Amino acid sequence: MSPSLTPLFVNFCLLCAMTLASDPDPVQDYCIPNPKLGAIKTPLHTFLPCKNSSEATTDDFVFSGMKVAGNFTDTGLAAISVNPTIFPGINTLGMSFVRADLYVGGINPPHFHPRATEISHIVQGSVYSGFVDSTNRVFARVIEQGEVMVFPRGLVHFQMNVGKKPATIFGSFNSQNPGMQKIPSAIFGSGINDELLEKAFGLSSKQIGTMRRRFDPKRVRF
Amino acid sequence: MSPSLTPLFVNFCLLCAMTLASDPDPVQDYCIPNPKLGAIKTPLHTFLPCKNSSEATTDDFVFSGMKVAGNFTDTGLAAISVNPTIFPGINTLGMSFVRADLYVGGINPPHFHPRATEISHIVQGSVYSGFVDSTNRVFARVIEQGEVMVFPRGLVHFQMNVGKKPATIFGSFNSQNPGMQKIPSAIFGSGINDELLEKAFGLSSKQIGTMRRRFDPKRVRF
Amino acid sequence: MSPSLTPLFVNFCLLCAMTLASDPDPVQDYCIPNPKLGAIKTPLHTFLPCKNSSEATTDDFVFSGMKVAGNFTDTGLAAISVNPTIFPGINTLGMSFVRADLYVGGINPPHFHPRATEISHIVQGSVYSGFVDSTNRVFARVIEQGEVMVFPRGLVHFQMNVGKKPATIFGSFNSQNPGMQKIPSAIFGSGINDELLEKAFGLSSKQIGTMRRRFDPKRVRF
Amino acid sequence: MSPSLTPLFVNFCLLCAMTLASDPDPVQDYCIPNPKLGAIKTPLHTFLPCKNSSEATTDDFVFSGMKVAGNFTDTGLAAISVNPTIFPGINTLGMSFVRADLYVGGINPPHFHPRATEISHIVQGSVYSGFVDSTNRVFARVIEQGEVMVFPRGLVHFQMNVGKKPATIFGSFNSQNPGMQKIPSAIFGSGINDELLEKAFGLSSKQIGTMRRRFDPKRVRF
Amino acid sequence: MSPSLTPLFVNFCLLCAMTLASDPDPVQDYCIPNPKLGAIKTPLHTFLPCKNSSEATTDDFVFSGMKVAGNFTDTGLAAISVNPTIFPGINTLGMSFVRADLYVGGINPPHFHPRATEISHIVQGSVYSGFVDSTNRVFARVIEQGEVMVFPRGLVHFQMNVGKKPATIFGSFNSQNPGMQKIPSAIFGSGINDELLEKAFGLSSKQIGTMRRRFDPKRVRF
Amino acid sequence: MSPSLTPLFVNFCLLCAMTLASDPDPVQDYCIPNPKLGAIKTPLHTFLPCKNSSEATTDDFVFSGMKVAGNFTDTGLAAISVNPTIFPGINTLGMSFVRADLYVGGINPPHFHPRATEISHIVQGSVYSGFVDSTNRVFARVIEQGEVMVFPRGLVHFQMNVGKKPATIFGSFNSQNPGMQKIPSAIFGSGINDELLEKAFGLSSKQIGTMRRRFDPKRVRF
Repeated sequence: MSPSLTPLFVNFCLLCAMTLASDPDPVQDYCIPNPKLGAIKTPLHTFLPCKNSSEATTDDFVFSGMKVAGNFTDTGLAAISVNPTIFPGINTLGMSFVRADLYVGGINPPHFHPRATEISHIVQGSVYSGFVDSTNRVFARVIEQGEVMVFPRGLVHFQMNVGKKPATIFGSFNSQNPGMQKIPSAIFGSGINDELLEKAFGLSSKQIGTMRRRFDPKRVRF
Repeated sequence: MSPSLTPLFVNFCLLCAMTLASDPDPVQDYCIPNPKLGAIKTPLHTFLPCKNSSEATTDDFVFSGMKVAGNFTDTGLAAISVNPTIFPGINTLGMSFVRADLYVGGINPPHFHPRATEISHIVQGSVYSGFVDSTNRVFARVIEQGEVMVFPRGLVHFQMNVGKKPATIFGSFNSQNPGMQKIPSAIFGSGINDELLEKAFGLSSKQIGTMRRRFDPKRVRF
Repeated sequence: MSPSLTPLFVNFCLLCAMTLASDPDPVQDYCIPNPKLGAIKTPLHTFLPCKNSSEATTDDFVFSGMKVAGNFTDTGLAAISVNPTIFPGINTLGMSFVRADLYVGGINPPHFHPRATEISHIVQGSVYSGFVDSTNRVFARVIEQGEVMVFPRGLVHFQMNVGKKPATIFGSFNSQNPGMQKIPSAIFGSGINDELLEKAFGLSSKQIGTMRRRFDPKRVRF
Repeated sequence: MSPSLTPLFVNFCLLCAMTLASDPDPVQDYCIPNPKLGAIKTPLHTFLPCKNSSEATTDDFVFSGMKVAGNFTDTGLAAISVNPTIFPGINTLGMSFVRADLYVGGINPPHFHPRATEISHIVQGSVYSGFVDSTNRVFARVIEQGEVMVFPRGLVHFQMNVGKKPATIFGSFNSQNPGMQKIPSAIFGSGINDELLEKAFGLSSKQIGTMRRRFDPKRVRF
Repeated sequence: MSPSLTPLFVNFCLLCAMTLASDPDPVQDYCIPNPKLGAIKTPLHTFLPCKNSSEATTDDFVFSGMKVAGNFTDTGLAAISVNPTIFPGINTLGMSFVRADLYVGGINPPHFHPRATEISHIVQGSVYSGFVDSTNRVFARVIEQGEVMVFPRGLVHFQMNVGKKPATIFGSFNSQNPGMQKIPSAIFGSGINDELLEKAFGLSSKQIGTMRRRFDPKRVRF
Repeated sequence: MSPSLTPLFVNFCLLCAMTLASDPDPVQDYCIPNPKLGAIKTPLHTFLPCKNSSEATTDDFVFSGMKVAGNFTDTGLAAISVNPTIFPGINTLGMSFVRADLYVGGINPPHFHPRATEISHIVQGSVYSGFVDSTNRVFARVIEQGEVMVFPRGLVHFQMNVGKKPATIFGSFNSQNPGMQKIPSAIFGSGINDELLEKAFGLSSKQIGTMRRRFDPKRVRF
């Protein structure tokens, strides 16, 4: 590597330190990764190039990719998670959102988002919705079109379409990357020691084996 | 006031310090003010009593008050701002939201929210939407049902129904109290010195007087 | 309510606002609730009175209550969670800790802390320890006395004593109230709709019933 | 680009993640961009190289560039905004400042800073100063040498020299990049749709046209 | 205590939780404690009552109490620390400031502020100013009227008037309560064990005794 | 450097902005610098390359390097500070820790950590431990094996082994880089102006000279 390159390399990281370290709030109006240039793939990572702010366009701040439902999973859920990777304009702004559609009888299994509260707005349908608090109390009921339920940050929640037609939900988050752990696959599809799972759930070795096969990451279609 | 009461009083504030000061994130699952008890009015303030968590119910976390549009202002805007005062369950969770309806041709005048980014989801209609960045560039266009526009925190933005039927918008915020300053009334309806406004906008004394009367807080219906 | 009381009431809340709202870091050296006065029970809540800082003593900043293991649960775990309620001196300082002892073969079931990373220091014993990341990969192995494992914030983790003598673990957290959801009881002991659980885990109605009885909050000893 | 370089590139960004993501406070003593090396201009951006901390000097932490007033705008304001670009030593430290001079009768037009509160210290002169709160109340009066006024974060504020000699103001901010939107040019000089502005301000198409020409970015000298 | 009062008490703390816990930024425009009502003294604490926002006045946001120097200490320093106790309007806004005057030859001893960076603006005079970084390097030199030095958060710093006339400094902080520890009195005037101090500083028991008497809190005038 | 490379460089920094600027909490599960590749040394800085998350291993999250005490200083202290440089897995997770051993009679001199509270757990021995608050009160006493003392963020603290065998302490911090200033060397070993130190501590020029030689960075072994 040529010495003449080094100072530039150094710039980048320290500049990041410069604009970020001291302000928990965003320190610029916006910062748009440029999806048109396509991802840059390296042996280790994939990056999205960003636009010069003078080249930002109105379209960067509009998302049009959730006018129709996404692909459905085995449980009857179709979720389009909208984060900076597919909607560059929200980058650095502390929010993201999701369109979730549920077939009749479809479910969104128990899961949680470690880094965000969710505001869940029923755009269409009747949805049994709820969450569990840290004393193991459940708060759940059916909510209808035009109603909103809130799922507090980091608490397990779930949804099931109990109506007679497909349901559509618009969920918004107060993080650009809320994170998610789906309980069934995180527990039974991840390879935690069998003995520990048997003791934790009071299941036999055989029963654990059945659960493992069911949530084997090679089989499950999320 | 009896001395024996004092230690209790002291508790409350220090307990607040205890649970809040060191963690910018919420330090409990939720905290629900109880709207059923009604507001407590004192000579100086109005407070909402809170529920014991064991008395929280599912309904505390569901909001049903925006199934229909709110009351319209002179500019053809009806906004239902949903914050902890009317939706106790979102208290302390760092989010709030709004339902905004616009008559055909109605506008949401230029305004900004100092404490939140807004994710604006068009539930119905065609809405010219945009914001101005800090270099005075405008980013604006018409967006349609199912599309989303983001308004970065603290930047002036605006909306106008350019379709042929009423429009409905669901906006969500990453603060439980985003704040708002509407430019026309903040500037011309607040009582800033005339000479300063004349110089700032290049308007005559008479023109400023006209603007003042137009945005006189006693006349305007927001 | 007498008018003369009002200003004092008002003080408390606004003073809290004063010392807390603008600084995410602590805004005083410390704030010690006084356990000697005992809890103050009201119809709705229980509070701990705080000390005047001039009455703070060295003992307020020393915790001596975890020299021996706590009470063991059914799974062979004894956890002493040290938060401001039992160690007043850490109040407002953004940290808390836990002493966990495990019988031979005992487990700490899969759980997560929504509000903190955990640094887990093995004081004695051999402990199979691990966590699951959000792609459902498990990171787990046996760690020995003097070793440390980190459990990133909000990710499911677990422990099992695989040695031939009791194990002791000292865990520290970067929140004074990390929160916790134990997966088995949060899912099967909380009252989530049966049909939803059946679909989420691929279990029969009968199997779900068995799990429910196992984690019935009236039966389980945590 | 050679594959052998890629891992190094990857380092830089992840290192930034390493030092920044988990601590909202600065995670090092300081980080000084090096203005002496000159900016590095790329087709898209301009960067300032940073110094190795062992090469930092006392002069990096002293700013001497505001002993005299800056260049005056049309409204009689000369502002020297001191941010990390011109004072490297404040980089990452969460503060910045401004020297503002006002001719006799000069104004600082209504504007706001989305990311900072301002402490405004009158070093010399008599300055009508004020801000508008979110209920459209104005708080304004003349303040004199040695007095300080505070402008809360995100609220519109303004100043006018009402004395008989030039005024000098030292303003400090609790962000290294407070941001700013000047109302007259953000509204009338940015290209917001005419019809929307007419409806928002109650002005005729002709009046809006006059305002537009007045704040045309090609004409205005800020 | 009457049961009928209890619900109100409960309100206050939970309301504080409501408005504060989820937003590290201020969640209202301002919050002014009212010094005119006088402090409310309880057996344990002293509180300042706050104003209803509709009773706030312009004067609440203006500080006029540092037009002249404060009282001088033994080392020739007069500091007026302006925090919410004496300037109610800055309450909750994340900033505070200080006017410091130094006699000819006067010093501001080595000290640090745990919770804030300081921007130190020389209003008048010639002041030797500096700080020590965490590698024990000192950054110090004489700075003159109109110059600014920055003291990074949490680092030991100091000042000495090396000019021929009194010096005046305006320091601003990015916390409403920056905190302070003066090294000489914190170390030798606080009662740390003698043997530990002897070993730490390589001083004899007699020398430590001398230092102790010099910084005995009963003798020193700060 | 070829122009065609530039856009990629630009990406990296803006991507950092993308994932970090808006969320004070971590925005990914973890981020592990790869110590196996060795540090990359440039003329200005040293960097650690990071791993692709799919290449992370369990060992990345386990620290085994403090099973025995580190190297002892002149004052009888051996400290192993465990930060992301030597324990990659804690990177971005907001915590770090230290193993400190003290010879019989050994001391940890008065020092402070600007960016973290410390939870100090006595694994073995009897340790006089304490801190000084901002009113110069000392809180100190001997604590024994199994006891914990908390040192609030930014306050001077100290330790001395007063038992008859070596002591071992496990300290944990709520920052991945707590920072540290040791008072004796920061004050007397850093090069602060002699006259200022004489006035601050009431010492003669000769006495200051003695202190300087004692804490000359070329002589002291930390």
